Amino acid sequence: MSQYDNVTVIKKANLYFDGKVSSRTVLFADGTKKTLGIMLPGDYEFGTDAKEIMEILAGELKVLLPGETEWISISGEGEFTVPANSKFKLQVASITDYACSYIQE
Amino acid sequence: MSQYDNVTVIKKANLYFDGKVSSRTVLFADGTKKTLGIMLPGDYEFGTDAKEIMEILAGELKVLLPGETEWISISGEGEFTVPANSKFKLQVASITDYACSYIQE
Repeated sequence: MSQYDNVTVIKKANLYFDGKVSSRTVLFADGTKKTLGIMLPGDYEFGTDAKEIMEILAGELKVLLPGETEWISISGEGEFTVPANSKFKLQVASITDYACSYIQE
Repeated sequence: MSQYDNVTVIKKANLYFDGKVSSRTVLFADGTKKTLGIMLPGDYEFGTDAKEIMEILAGELKVLLPGETEWISISGEGEFTVPANSKFKLQVASITDYACSYIQE
């Protein structure tokens, strides 16, 4: 799926880490939400509220999921899931384009 | 208008200047197109194909429109129009969030 149809897009961007991470919120007719974002190179830690499925559309990064000691490497496309109410770390080596789905459980 | 309803969003980002400028394409039911973008601080020159109406949602920047010698300053919200098939320069002083409308004439 290369595009989202029949959605609502919030105009204002979400900005994190001095804008090195930015995203736009996309709302779906079924009440679900995704963000489409860009991460510039850097080290980041994020906290989740809902469970998140992170789809990497392009980029090069390492991910440390909560409770893990081994970093996962993603080059190009990839996906990982982060549990609700947890923290995860990212080491972004090149510009990373992502789609994040928020899953209410 | 704080959101766009009933639109299609292209998932993959448009990246310029090593990702310091990035945007997402939003397609409307009437066939028109906008992009929602972020510019990090820096000096940029852009070329237009269609006429563009640049709505600044937040940020601090100076704009040099084609054929002009005086820079326009925008702080916070603002708007400027760039003719088709021309070039314009931007000096972005702080993270700038924008919505760009492409006008077919």
